[in-house]
Amino acid sequence: MEILSWVDYAGVAVFAATGALAASRKQLDFIAFVFLAATTGIGGGTLRDAILGLTPVFWVQQEIYLYICVVVAAVVFFTAHRFESRYRLLLWLDAIGMAIFCVKGAQIGLAATGSPTAAVVTGILSSTFGGVLRDILSGEQSVLMRREIYVTAALFGSAVWVLGDYIGSLFGERLGQYQHLSQEIASVAGFAVALFIRGGALYWDWKMPNY
Amino acid sequence: MEILSWVDYAGVAVFAATGALAASRKQLDFIAFVFLAATTGIGGGTLRDAILGLTPVFWVQQEIYLYICVVVAAVVFFTAHRFESRYRLLLWLDAIGMAIFCVKGAQIGLAATGSPTAAVVTGILSSTFGGVLRDILSGEQSVLMRREIYVTAALFGSAVWVLGDYIGSLFGERLGQYQHLSQEIASVAGFAVALFIRGGALYWDWKMPNY
Amino acid sequence: MEILSWVDYAGVAVFAATGALAASRKQLDFIAFVFLAATTGIGGGTLRDAILGLTPVFWVQQEIYLYICVVVAAVVFFTAHRFESRYRLLLWLDAIGMAIFCVKGAQIGLAATGSPTAAVVTGILSSTFGGVLRDILSGEQSVLMRREIYVTAALFGSAVWVLGDYIGSLFGERLGQYQHLSQEIASVAGFAVALFIRGGALYWDWKMPNY
Repeated sequence: MEILSWVDYAGVAVFAATGALAASRKQLDFIAFVFLAATTGIGGGTLRDAILGLTPVFWVQQEIYLYICVVVAAVVFFTAHRFESRYRLLLWLDAIGMAIFCVKGAQIGLAATGSPTAAVVTGILSSTFGGVLRDILSGEQSVLMRREIYVTAALFGSAVWVLGDYIGSLFGERLGQYQHLSQEIASVAGFAVALFIRGGALYWDWKMPNY
Repeated sequence: MEILSWVDYAGVAVFAATGALAASRKQLDFIAFVFLAATTGIGGGTLRDAILGLTPVFWVQQEIYLYICVVVAAVVFFTAHRFESRYRLLLWLDAIGMAIFCVKGAQIGLAATGSPTAAVVTGILSSTFGGVLRDILSGEQSVLMRREIYVTAALFGSAVWVLGDYIGSLFGERLGQYQHLSQEIASVAGFAVALFIRGGALYWDWKMPNY
Repeated sequence: MEILSWVDYAGVAVFAATGALAASRKQLDFIAFVFLAATTGIGGGTLRDAILGLTPVFWVQQEIYLYICVVVAAVVFFTAHRFESRYRLLLWLDAIGMAIFCVKGAQIGLAATGSPTAAVVTGILSSTFGGVLRDILSGEQSVLMRREIYVTAALFGSAVWVLGDYIGSLFGERLGQYQHLSQEIASVAGFAVALFIRGGALYWDWKMPNY
């Protein structure tokens, strides 16, 4: 559980950093850094919880998520000028956050609904909506609307986790004490697939066949 | 009930088609077609359910709505180039979807709250919010912000259904076995009024007096 | 309670007026006036209730909020041309609405969660989200994204109320019959601080140090 929490915090932190970087690109003030960091960091999970009826949403009682966003906004406020290409950094952090949240979103979606399809959809929503909010609020064209492989990566990451979880459950009893391990393998696999697809799109400029 | 389900599926399908057409106009890839189709097809109902507290929202367990969006996105992906004016087609399909969803939204709103006013408002939200999301995400100016008769049509459609339902309930006992029929008349009347007003605006270029 | 309700209605009314003024600046029709007025007037509270799980959201049963928005939209429709600078008026009304709603949002957030941090966040969301929706829908650049002191004002207003409420609770028993008074002082203080900060930014063109 410890590790999972840390991964989760890391996901919020990198998304929050992309929000703060967007604020730095618009030369906004510190409060706007915090606002965009928090909107990006917890926006996807908020939509997920609202759709699933898991209210009050996750950050209402677990305030650490809010504090993470404030701290990250402060760090970016004082360091962003050091990075040569802030937009490039934003895109890579965004990729990592997306890869973490598609797995996390799928886990919560499956636990709440028992439906693999719904789990994939909540995985996609959790991992993309924060970035969509960031782009709309900061007036950038949404990454979804450019010829970028983004939702595709979240879809595959979520689906790989759901599949891995299903395979693990098939062998549930035989696995015994290793059952927990199979969960972690599924999570790492989903994360890795999502990051590989999105990272490949960023690094090698992969494109999907467009219309 | 059978017929109502099919009408409901048709509403999601035509809205999904408008989302996919918006994706085709932006020359996006297939996943973006699905994403915009689903956002448009189920966005309005998702907002309605979140506001009414009907969570998990409708498509979480009734996955057929998601599958409809995927299939529609695929069909549009392979056929949209055949249509001479994709935007014209988008507007007419959008009109049909709006007319279906203002009645559907008002029905669900009235059942959940017992309030005719709330029913009209949920009718308007269900039938317009998917299109608003589509327009915001695809970077088009929202139809609400142009001098178009749109919300007005949804308002009248919802109100006619609420009125028809009320009149039917007045004669409830006397109607006996025809009570179900009175419900259907109210639905068809609401649909027809909404489509007539919106269709008239599209065909005869009707305008409201503006400011 | 009487007074609090009236203040609350006033908050919805001034926010609704800013929505209607945005519609007048775009020369839209009357229904668009109502739609933008309602979106702005009740949008922030709707998000607050959805996040806290207080569903159906507040205006579903208390329809007076909807009627206020309709009446305000009508008044603005027939009078807005008399104002020399509609945008200036919009900004000042928006400041008053924000100052009312940061206190109101913090009160509801604290009552629902018991957490001061969550109360401040719901205060900020309640008082800013309606305006964000108005700006996105009417195609204006969001006030959050300009070098304006806005979220900062909502943050301080919410925080002052939370602090005042806490101080009042410390002396709870000793205050006796004056306990109600301490609540009102906290509310007025939160409102005044938020309005002073935002008003100062508007009048004296205060700026935060930006990036």
